[in-house]
Amino acid sequence: MSILAIDFGGTRTRAAWFNEALQQMHRAEVPTLRHEPQEQVIQRVIDCARSVVPDGEQPRVIGICAPGPQAFTGYILHANTLPGWDRVPLAERISVAFGGVPVAMENDANLAALAEYHQGAAQGCDPALYLTLSTGIGGGAILGGQLFTGWRGLAIEPGHLKFLHPDGRTYSLEALASGPALVYWAERALASGDAPSRLREMARLDGRVIGMLAAEGDAVAGQVVAEAGRWLGLGLVALTHLFNPQVIVLGGSVTQLGALLLEPVRRTLAQLLIDPAFNDPGLLRLAALGDDVCLIGAAYHARGRG
Amino acid sequence: MSILAIDFGGTRTRAAWFNEALQQMHRAEVPTLRHEPQEQVIQRVIDCARSVVPDGEQPRVIGICAPGPQAFTGYILHANTLPGWDRVPLAERISVAFGGVPVAMENDANLAALAEYHQGAAQGCDPALYLTLSTGIGGGAILGGQLFTGWRGLAIEPGHLKFLHPDGRTYSLEALASGPALVYWAERALASGDAPSRLREMARLDGRVIGMLAAEGDAVAGQVVAEAGRWLGLGLVALTHLFNPQVIVLGGSVTQLGALLLEPVRRTLAQLLIDPAFNDPGLLRLAALGDDVCLIGAAYHARGRG
Repeated sequence: MSILAIDFGGTRTRAAWFNEALQQMHRAEVPTLRHEPQEQVIQRVIDCARSVVPDGEQPRVIGICAPGPQAFTGYILHANTLPGWDRVPLAERISVAFGGVPVAMENDANLAALAEYHQGAAQGCDPALYLTLSTGIGGGAILGGQLFTGWRGLAIEPGHLKFLHPDGRTYSLEALASGPALVYWAERALASGDAPSRLREMARLDGRVIGMLAAEGDAVAGQVVAEAGRWLGLGLVALTHLFNPQVIVLGGSVTQLGALLLEPVRRTLAQLLIDPAFNDPGLLRLAALGDDVCLIGAAYHARGRG
Repeated sequence: MSILAIDFGGTRTRAAWFNEALQQMHRAEVPTLRHEPQEQVIQRVIDCARSVVPDGEQPRVIGICAPGPQAFTGYILHANTLPGWDRVPLAERISVAFGGVPVAMENDANLAALAEYHQGAAQGCDPALYLTLSTGIGGGAILGGQLFTGWRGLAIEPGHLKFLHPDGRTYSLEALASGPALVYWAERALASGDAPSRLREMARLDGRVIGMLAAEGDAVAGQVVAEAGRWLGLGLVALTHLFNPQVIVLGGSVTQLGALLLEPVRRTLAQLLIDPAFNDPGLLRLAALGDDVCLIGAAYHARGRG
């Protein structure tokens, strides 16, 4: 009797079998193929999960990770990586497929926070905040040793911090500092000026290309990344003044920009935090866990729910 | 044997004697006279506190409320209402004066949050946030039934949320929506335009006067209050997306502006929260406790520390 963890994502679906000591024993991964009919997608998730369960065994409890705020409902809401999946009773379908075992479903960023707290960059830190910077910006918090979810399970949505931009419009943090945001602001910079930039030669822009050119000294790319870093810094100032965290762990593909992004973040924190006591040298850390972070988090989350 | 509570404020100092059921038995109040020598001020605080202790009794524990972030140190830091009081060992002085009884000192907004949670507008609500809008903007949070203070006791400083203003500068929320902020923006509006306004006739502007004229239909005063409401709304959007609170209690003198302030706050919340599930009809409430809110909070905070 052990724990089955499932990470249902917009692109990949992963499953792993954990023993009660939370060691990962078996693991499988399949493409989600989200545009196929939902029944087929769900069946693929279940098959992937079954493939990691040892012969003759049955999970005691199942932890499921899925995107979007979920409000303790067992279904997905507003997940921009899984459009059309609102209110599909995913947790129930998976529970039934495994003979009705208890299921604990949670948001991906919340579970990543839990994993980094137990096994990653936030070990021994409380409060611990986690932000994932990729297609969007999600977050999770460990407060008093527990995953903090708020009244209806909707807490810690740092991507939806709102900022007035000098252009006069109000933007969410994730429209200012996510991967797609970098592309948007780079395209805007190219359209509104005629500064020479190798960005103009690229067939397709993405965060990785922009970061690469910024690292090579391309001025426009550098400004776009620095600007994203300053906005992210402004978001982290808000989080720090509110939570006084011991650590903020940054994960997700955008963190591959490294120092180009983190330097303006750190400068903004140093400039705007009201007291250095908020700004411990160890405050900002990069995520330590890799692709399986959500499986690990789902296993921890499920452990107490069986 | 009971609980002595002391509220040491920039203007008034209050003390009360509570029985173990947290009923307030005796109460006293004196002016703080903060510009007098610190020894005299401290002695006046101690005398005021002594005056509420019944003959022959001794407090089991003392709860002290004081302004500014305190970081579990027992002294005040950065309290704009008590300049020059940084690092004065207030908690220790009071403990010694009462024979060395244990003392629990906390920030005023944190203790107000605790009081509203136990006896006021936030009863039965978790997470519960509290904001005080007066000379500055302070805050407190009850999460999981406990006062949330963060790593070093610095958490919940909503007055220091930073916003970029259309004028190109970055302002703290308390520079946009506190009492002095109303005066600042009113003066700026008068200086930069020539719109007729009865504000020009006033010998001295304060939040009360601006609110009164706004209520009477003065356009400039109305715009100033509405603008403060929109900024406050933006701050509450951040708090709501992060904490998913069941209630946000608003206290402090600025809330006397009533609907003039709260309507733009509510409109901003309705407009910018990503899902109506964040925005329960009961989300925003006015504080229920009066001048003694911090004494009540100090008593609750001290109760478990004896």
